[in-house]
Amino acid sequence: MPDASPAPVTAAILVIGDEILSGRTKDKNIGYIAEYLTNSGIDLREVRVVPDVAEEIVAAVNALRGRYTYLFTTGGIGPTHDDITADCVAEAVGVGIDVDPQAKAMLLERIKPEDLNEARLRMARIPFGAELIENPISKAPGFMIENVIVMAGVPSIMQAMLDSVAPRLKTGARVSAETIEAGNLPEGGYAEGLALIAKAHPGVSIGSYPSMTAAGFRNQIVVRGREPEALAAARAEIEALVSRLQAERN
Amino acid sequence: MPDASPAPVTAAILVIGDEILSGRTKDKNIGYIAEYLTNSGIDLREVRVVPDVAEEIVAAVNALRGRYTYLFTTGGIGPTHDDITADCVAEAVGVGIDVDPQAKAMLLERIKPEDLNEARLRMARIPFGAELIENPISKAPGFMIENVIVMAGVPSIMQAMLDSVAPRLKTGARVSAETIEAGNLPEGGYAEGLALIAKAHPGVSIGSYPSMTAAGFRNQIVVRGREPEALAAARAEIEALVSRLQAERN
Repeated sequence: MPDASPAPVTAAILVIGDEILSGRTKDKNIGYIAEYLTNSGIDLREVRVVPDVAEEIVAAVNALRGRYTYLFTTGGIGPTHDDITADCVAEAVGVGIDVDPQAKAMLLERIKPEDLNEARLRMARIPFGAELIENPISKAPGFMIENVIVMAGVPSIMQAMLDSVAPRLKTGARVSAETIEAGNLPEGGYAEGLALIAKAHPGVSIGSYPSMTAAGFRNQIVVRGREPEALAAARAEIEALVSRLQAERN
Repeated sequence: MPDASPAPVTAAILVIGDEILSGRTKDKNIGYIAEYLTNSGIDLREVRVVPDVAEEIVAAVNALRGRYTYLFTTGGIGPTHDDITADCVAEAVGVGIDVDPQAKAMLLERIKPEDLNEARLRMARIPFGAELIENPISKAPGFMIENVIVMAGVPSIMQAMLDSVAPRLKTGARVSAETIEAGNLPEGGYAEGLALIAKAHPGVSIGSYPSMTAAGFRNQIVVRGREPEALAAARAEIEALVSRLQAERN
């Protein structure tokens, strides 16, 4: 991704689909996009999941596109009646929508002309003024209009679209993260020391993340920030805290 | 879950945590809660993920608790400085917060009195008027205040808390879902027929879900609804459509 600048570039994800809310489909896109954006220097600040209901989608698109540099949507761009994302994004942005000749040409790379029925043509309906996002897998494109990036819900297609659109996006300074293993040292044992370190280093964000393993809790402390020196300084203090507490324990 | 009534009971989930937005931790709670609620007769209508930032959490709690029967939150109730969920929920609901004697007693089941430092006591800070939610795994409780249910982020603990709070919740008529396998029949081939069926059966919701397999696309059609007869009628028409198209193909 070119055009790196120091100002933070922010994003939100809007996952569209009844199947996620019913629990039938377990979302795999949020975590993937989150990691991808972090690695690209784009700060993911919010995620929403909404049903296949036009008013909900339009309201969420408008709430999120106004607040962040980019809004990425997943889902709802297929040929069936429940695929209403393109129309909702057009409505939210306030532009018309119709079959796009270039998008139609893309569909025809995969679909025979005699099979290009009205339903399939829905996949070529693109809001006026949008740029297409290539879909190397099943051809039906995504699109970007203003700061809204509309992608498929099927993970492999979404991932290919993200690769395709990424070079067009502006990015900020990458947030680096460093993990300090606290092992089975209890969070409650280091929390006070960690809070003091967090207070002394306002330029970084420090989190403590417990997970359950067969052997009980395992804790990790993560320092995140854009300034390598600030990160290193906070990391050194946390390592010293953890070492001291581990020594006291033994 | 007792007290089943025919009115829809709705819910939202608010996932709280920088680690989800950075992609470092892949959320496992949304899909679990979604399936759990669907099976319990509670309609999940929206999900949001927000960072560990007080204003964001308070704003999301207030937006969601006002719109749905229940709001379930996950994450941010540990002993470290980045665990601010309880305070934010108290602020959103407009009540005070302090160490709760019963919650403190729960912590003392696991923590020696001499180890109950200020950081660990944070886990016993409960908004005034909340009911505790038992945590059989690590004792630090969740809580329910008005219609907001505050749970841990660690999946095994969250799941235990959900089991613990579920009997207290009201539930509606369960939404049943039936899946019709369309196999490799293309979505674009059945989309028009499916749209007509959807239009003729407004009492059910019909979705078409493609997934990618090693052998190419595999499509499933799902009918969801509360009325067994409406569900069966729509299902029969979809099965007939799929059979007809499959026969035409061979």
